[in-house]
Amino acid sequence: MQIDLHQPILDKNDKLAAELRARFDEHHVYVVDLLASPGSGKTSTILATIDALRDEFNIAVIEGDIASSVDAEKIKAQGIPAVQINTGGACHLESAMLKRAVDVLDLERLDLIIIENVGNLVCPTDFYLGENAKVMILSVPEGHDKPLKYPGVFQASQAVILNKYDTLPVFDFDEEAFRSAVYQLNPQAPIFPVAATKGEGVQAWAEWLAARIRAV
Amino acid sequence: MQIDLHQPILDKNDKLAAELRARFDEHHVYVVDLLASPGSGKTSTILATIDALRDEFNIAVIEGDIASSVDAEKIKAQGIPAVQINTGGACHLESAMLKRAVDVLDLERLDLIIIENVGNLVCPTDFYLGENAKVMILSVPEGHDKPLKYPGVFQASQAVILNKYDTLPVFDFDEEAFRSAVYQLNPQAPIFPVAATKGEGVQAWAEWLAARIRAV
Repeated sequence: MQIDLHQPILDKNDKLAAELRARFDEHHVYVVDLLASPGSGKTSTILATIDALRDEFNIAVIEGDIASSVDAEKIKAQGIPAVQINTGGACHLESAMLKRAVDVLDLERLDLIIIENVGNLVCPTDFYLGENAKVMILSVPEGHDKPLKYPGVFQASQAVILNKYDTLPVFDFDEEAFRSAVYQLNPQAPIFPVAATKGEGVQAWAEWLAARIRAV
Repeated sequence: MQIDLHQPILDKNDKLAAELRARFDEHHVYVVDLLASPGSGKTSTILATIDALRDEFNIAVIEGDIASSVDAEKIKAQGIPAVQINTGGACHLESAMLKRAVDVLDLERLDLIIIENVGNLVCPTDFYLGENAKVMILSVPEGHDKPLKYPGVFQASQAVILNKYDTLPVFDFDEEAFRSAVYQLNPQAPIFPVAATKGEGVQAWAEWLAARIRAV
């Protein structure tokens, strides 16, 4: 006999995620779940996004990592509430983990929660956390062929941030091939070229996000 | 009631992996399981390794990907046998998948099998495939803090390849902090700085590997 626990686990996760979403909606908090490989620049992108949006919106960050709290420390250093979730080995966040982090945030005074998922282009894709949108980051050094190899995350994302765009001259990255491959998988998703550590290109991405925060 | 299927799945995987390992040993084939993030340069490193070792050893490559066969095509273009495993969504290789690939290889005439695992710093760490060694690649653009965030893969690896080493001037990568963090987790593992696409630094890594191939 084979027991398939994948579907029951997802069902349980999705039920709790729907409850979280109801809480977010009730408090008019927009939630974005950020997916990317290790080292693609999730935290730098979040810091740049905070810079662009903090005058208009109250922001909190939930940091998912296997171990360590280095990312949450970087966010807190900017005066932004940050909750670190250590998954203790798990390769993605689930809504039960997220709930514990959300419970310590003051939703009443927040406009935006950015979730930094575990660095992983595969597993987080399947897990709904009650977010309004999943957004992914690919960084130029990772290569233009990633949509062919990890199609699921490109299909699940409402927008694609192409980070470390300033290193384009250093790498053999075919931007046209990349854009075409993303379009095949997800024709609606805009692609935002960004150099997060330099703040370049952040404006277009921040405006896309701001329009959605204002609408909830 | 909670059913923990993690351990039974690992037990079943390990049993089959041990059978594979017996076959590898019988035929004096050395097997290395290569772990890394998406886009860290696994395939380029494999191509550079093939270049360095093909005069002395007969090599085959097993490519693990969620989807696509672009990597296997690149290997085959070099005249090296390559078998593509598409995991169909799974975030790591398991020994049952590997067995199907090994079954189509002629072990009698091989000295080395390189397994390119799915791009993922988390999940493949737990799965023994019958390999002689797991080796990991971290690329400079991913950042020196990765040992803190993904300690498991650094502990499971017998050697660490630091790829895209030629891009060190472009990124804020603290090599001393990286080496120190790796040493804390795994004092035995050598670190090989490599620029795979340029063939730089490959010799030291190739010699480490060659010594192990000759010993089986």
